Amino acid sequence: MTDAINHQWRLAARPVGLPKTSDWSFTSEAPPVPGPGQVLVRVLYLSLDPAMRGWMNEGKSYVPPVGIGEVMRALGVGRVVASNDPSIAVGDHVVGLMGAQDYAVLAAKEATRIEPSLAPLPTWLGVLGMPGMTAYFGLLDVGQPKPGETVVVSGAAGAVGGLVGQIAKLKGCRVIGIAGGADKCRYVVEDLGFDGAIDYKAEDVRKSLRALAPKGVDVYFDNVGGDILDTVLAQLARGARIAICGAISQYNSTEGVKGPANYMSLLVNRARMQGFVVFDYAARYAEAARDIAVWIAEGKVKAKEDVAVGLENFPATLLKLFKGENFGKLVLKLAD
Amino acid sequence: MTDAINHQWRLAARPVGLPKTSDWSFTSEAPPVPGPGQVLVRVLYLSLDPAMRGWMNEGKSYVPPVGIGEVMRALGVGRVVASNDPSIAVGDHVVGLMGAQDYAVLAAKEATRIEPSLAPLPTWLGVLGMPGMTAYFGLLDVGQPKPGETVVVSGAAGAVGGLVGQIAKLKGCRVIGIAGGADKCRYVVEDLGFDGAIDYKAEDVRKSLRALAPKGVDVYFDNVGGDILDTVLAQLARGARIAICGAISQYNSTEGVKGPANYMSLLVNRARMQGFVVFDYAARYAEAARDIAVWIAEGKVKAKEDVAVGLENFPATLLKLFKGENFGKLVLKLAD
Repeated sequence: MTDAINHQWRLAARPVGLPKTSDWSFTSEAPPVPGPGQVLVRVLYLSLDPAMRGWMNEGKSYVPPVGIGEVMRALGVGRVVASNDPSIAVGDHVVGLMGAQDYAVLAAKEATRIEPSLAPLPTWLGVLGMPGMTAYFGLLDVGQPKPGETVVVSGAAGAVGGLVGQIAKLKGCRVIGIAGGADKCRYVVEDLGFDGAIDYKAEDVRKSLRALAPKGVDVYFDNVGGDILDTVLAQLARGARIAICGAISQYNSTEGVKGPANYMSLLVNRARMQGFVVFDYAARYAEAARDIAVWIAEGKVKAKEDVAVGLENFPATLLKLFKGENFGKLVLKLAD
Repeated sequence: MTDAINHQWRLAARPVGLPKTSDWSFTSEAPPVPGPGQVLVRVLYLSLDPAMRGWMNEGKSYVPPVGIGEVMRALGVGRVVASNDPSIAVGDHVVGLMGAQDYAVLAAKEATRIEPSLAPLPTWLGVLGMPGMTAYFGLLDVGQPKPGETVVVSGAAGAVGGLVGQIAKLKGCRVIGIAGGADKCRYVVEDLGFDGAIDYKAEDVRKSLRALAPKGVDVYFDNVGGDILDTVLAQLARGARIAICGAISQYNSTEGVKGPANYMSLLVNRARMQGFVVFDYAARYAEAARDIAVWIAEGKVKAKEDVAVGLENFPATLLKLFKGENFGKLVLKLAD
């Protein structure tokens, strides 16, 4: 390790609107030294997630904000290069909160060992990782879809949305995805088996949704907020459930969040809108991962990752998320 | 009945913003003649409800709109003056959808007999009527308050809100009311036993709510929508439940409904917002009425009605609701 350099993206400013590269500083230092009960990890892949935008803001949320000067928070998968804990060996692969850097020190109990022979490393950040858990619990626990119901998911070609739709299909639902662009719409229908897709960039979402979900929407899994949430609210079926997973259309707004003007549809349709945070389901991650792994093995669930390369490209790659340019789970590869 | 005249308020135009008298026409004709299985009722009191504003709009809702030219829909209590059904006798008192008129024909099965010796007639339109059912089921079924939790209700001095708070107190909750004006705030604390009240016309609701509910809001029963909903959303406790009963601040908006910009607090706080329509609980009205009647008899629940007089004053009296001028359940007395 004597020659190794730990490059890091540290938060330099709280962004206004879309983050820019100058909101971080790119620094380098010697890799950290693990203390007792800790491991040192060479980070191999970083997970790039919409939630990162929220972590950059000041103020109360479900986790504390990243402090100015701190390494940008990021989930990652890596290889253990030094261990001071008997539960993890050098050479093991682990998932955990590693940060946007080459080397990370983690408490052994906060590093989850994975088995790379079961699935490629990026998949552990996708359908077998947080996005997978988010889709699984958000859909099944909050959305509670029943066979024959119509499930709509926005961000349908993204890491979470793609899995939400596939699980809903497995549960016997009719599934409509909303995504940006013909390629993504074709992908969710042809590759992931959705019953229909709406290209919000090219179609009148209201009209298309009425055509594809003529009996109304029973479950809406919302990743985007904004106008699309309002449009779906206007077409709820009675007793509908909306799972609020995210609002990526609003994260970079400089004019304040657009609240859903059609929320009184919740009253008319005796419907509910419920938020959730995946961390609350930590005690049940194993259950979800087992189900999803079986579905992958049986060919019933497809994993797709969008892999960018090079830690130096962290800011530009993260922006792809907010521009809707990613296709499947967005990860950044740092090393082999 | 040969001399009787049936005065009626018929919808003449769909209002834009606040209704005006000219949105109805005041007509008169001979009282209708009941057919087989029907009764003729002399309407004694009409119920004036925020929901009436929605009934005047075109478009899909939980009930069809009132048609242009039709008698304005209204609940009422009255005395049966002719009956073609063995289940109801002349002289009986009944509650039902009578419309804004002196005489109404109802199907006997849609007229609910009441016992005027148990409570004054207007009370059957208040805590023993739809507002009572709305408060009871909205709070207990949708809000699901638990002892020790903090319950906040807007429109706290209104027909529904006042009862919501009283029931929440009975269930062991800390109760904060939001109402307009010092008199109403004093009333909900001193007469109804709320733990605190916020005068939204005079106070900074955000600050006062923070002071009165320092641990956050567990249950919010929303009658008003708009800025107050947003303010409460920003101060939810984890796992909070919002029961959407109405949005009187928005019903007359000519600029579209203001959606709750802070709705992502549902995610941060793992909270839910759920709409309901009291009619869905029809099979359980008897259960609620029994509980409420017992609470009244025990002095644990107070009923308050705001009685205006004269069918000719229907439009002006209805406007009191939207100006926040009523104090307790607003009814219009037509005859003794």
